[in-house]
Amino acid sequence: MTETEFRKAIQAIRPVDEAMAERAWQRQDSLVKPPRSLGRLEELSVQLSAITGKLHNTVEKRCIVICCADNGVVEEGVSSAPQSVTLAQTVNFTRGKTGVAALSKEFGVELMVIDVGINAEFSCPGVLNRKIRKGTFNLAKRPVMERWEAVEALGVGLEAARRAREQGYDILGVGEMGIGNTTTSSAVLCALTGLPVEKTVGRGGGISLSAYERKKRLIEQALKAYRPDPNDPVDVLAKVGGFDIAAMAGVFLGAARERLPVVIDGFISAVAALCAARIEPKVKGYLIPSHASYEIGYSRAMEELGLRPVLLLDMRLGEGSGCPLAFEVIRAACAVMNGMATFAEADIDDGYLESIRKEDSFSVEGAGGETK
Amino acid sequence: MTETEFRKAIQAIRPVDEAMAERAWQRQDSLVKPPRSLGRLEELSVQLSAITGKLHNTVEKRCIVICCADNGVVEEGVSSAPQSVTLAQTVNFTRGKTGVAALSKEFGVELMVIDVGINAEFSCPGVLNRKIRKGTFNLAKRPVMERWEAVEALGVGLEAARRAREQGYDILGVGEMGIGNTTTSSAVLCALTGLPVEKTVGRGGGISLSAYERKKRLIEQALKAYRPDPNDPVDVLAKVGGFDIAAMAGVFLGAARERLPVVIDGFISAVAALCAARIEPKVKGYLIPSHASYEIGYSRAMEELGLRPVLLLDMRLGEGSGCPLAFEVIRAACAVMNGMATFAEADIDDGYLESIRKEDSFSVEGAGGETK
Repeated sequence: MTETEFRKAIQAIRPVDEAMAERAWQRQDSLVKPPRSLGRLEELSVQLSAITGKLHNTVEKRCIVICCADNGVVEEGVSSAPQSVTLAQTVNFTRGKTGVAALSKEFGVELMVIDVGINAEFSCPGVLNRKIRKGTFNLAKRPVMERWEAVEALGVGLEAARRAREQGYDILGVGEMGIGNTTTSSAVLCALTGLPVEKTVGRGGGISLSAYERKKRLIEQALKAYRPDPNDPVDVLAKVGGFDIAAMAGVFLGAARERLPVVIDGFISAVAALCAARIEPKVKGYLIPSHASYEIGYSRAMEELGLRPVLLLDMRLGEGSGCPLAFEVIRAACAVMNGMATFAEADIDDGYLESIRKEDSFSVEGAGGETK
Repeated sequence: MTETEFRKAIQAIRPVDEAMAERAWQRQDSLVKPPRSLGRLEELSVQLSAITGKLHNTVEKRCIVICCADNGVVEEGVSSAPQSVTLAQTVNFTRGKTGVAALSKEFGVELMVIDVGINAEFSCPGVLNRKIRKGTFNLAKRPVMERWEAVEALGVGLEAARRAREQGYDILGVGEMGIGNTTTSSAVLCALTGLPVEKTVGRGGGISLSAYERKKRLIEQALKAYRPDPNDPVDVLAKVGGFDIAAMAGVFLGAARERLPVVIDGFISAVAALCAARIEPKVKGYLIPSHASYEIGYSRAMEELGLRPVLLLDMRLGEGSGCPLAFEVIRAACAVMNGMATFAEADIDDGYLESIRKEDSFSVEGAGGETK
């Protein structure tokens, strides 16, 4: 995909349907509960209406797109796991063995596993081969990729969202596997926001204090040396990002283009969502948060997006592991919109309540008003 | 149930199984993820093991016990809804029309609806009649019930938990319907903790500022006049509580007696759980939080219990409406424990990874170590 093609593709992103959101709020406010007493379940149901343009929605067919790639920076000892784990866990997704795989199996969620740049030649039936290169360059030594490669990775994400729409998915989640990708995500977040490394860099999978210090210094030096342009997210991704993050940003953009709601997982996913929103702010209306990641940069990225998580689980696994439960929260939001009675419907005007009452100690006024 | 019988019943509560918790942690730490990276999903799975004494658990058969009763204090204008709504919504639970009913239908959760003291004679097939009296006395005028009535209501809760165990439920939730019960819950919380009304009283279903001030003064006066004994939760329930809260406290105690995990809903449910834990501290090991209620007293009650919610949904409906989603979180915890591979199982020692690799750019070390 050329950059011109990419720009044209994202021009197809439409804002969410505010008129339908208005109608959805009217419906919510007519249901038998104190107005807004179901809080964010109401908000999520309204957001879904605005995204799809339909009042009533379901999220039966759910998919997590997992973008897998290697990062040259692992040479610098900033990760607790060896690079080989990227390939091993990518294969394990397709064999149902990892955290997100176990959760997805339980909740009937499907995985779309994409190799965007794993450092190995292999073929595995469950992994889509969209490898751009066998891992990025080492961030400590030079910008991690060429600009055209970043565009290519964004295009992989757009294509994945298109494919998901064609396969009939109602909602997407965005996960990743890439040893070293908390380092690159922190670098991207610093580049986009100007935040110091102290606010964005955590200890990832669990590195030593000295590796943690090295990780921060390395990011500072890369930002200083390559000067990524905060107003050009493609430049940021190309200089200090990764194939995984770029493809994930593409999935967020693509979901918006396909009018599909899309769930953010943890830190890396949130940074990718921020890249997408900086490329095209209309994406924001399609983004749905999941869990509050334990990685420190997560809340900074979410603040930038103006989003709050719905699950408080102290998780920091990545892989898209927060998405299956977020899908259940959204399923609950749909159930409220689709299953609750309106005041008019719940008003016991059919004589039922009268017929079951044995004496008339008070007048029955139905379920009008508020409930507490 | 006499008080002697009640005391004997709760003596049967056993502490959770710490040795099994230890085994469960060992299992969690052997699964393919950085240790503790699935945070509270790991903790919940371990808690379930400790409760049931089994390493692997499921929560397929789920029930929310909804205790329904009227409160004499509504005469004082402290509620936004008329008293008749207690009966109307109780009946609506059985007709699938309310918030908790719509959510429960979606997630395959059953409801056990109990009339502990609704101010009406009626008969409805889906409502268990355990009416103690047609509503409590008016808190503004005298202690709300006799001590034996509080014990009776606690016994209703114990019986409900026994029945749930006999019917094969794996987990319970505890909800309520009772116009005026944020007032009584705040009074109970103040009595048990010594907190001032400013820290415990909210605006319930949405009352006016003047009704809110009246609500606070009324609680202060009742506490001063009846002097409930903070070291005797039964005295507190009898003087300033309600039939609903007392029965709910009984469900929490009963769940612990039956070795069933039990989920707290919002503010009123949390206060009932606190009563149960003050009656028998061993109950704490069986309690599982759900959502962070918007009612201000909620977080105070949870602090006292040493619990943090898992869902951030800005909800304040009550009814047990936070329980269905909490059950899904617990289902996720079980899926992690039951479905993830161990490092040993995930180690690609069967030649599979070697067979799919086309060239040998690095040595495959399996999925050992941490994943980021």
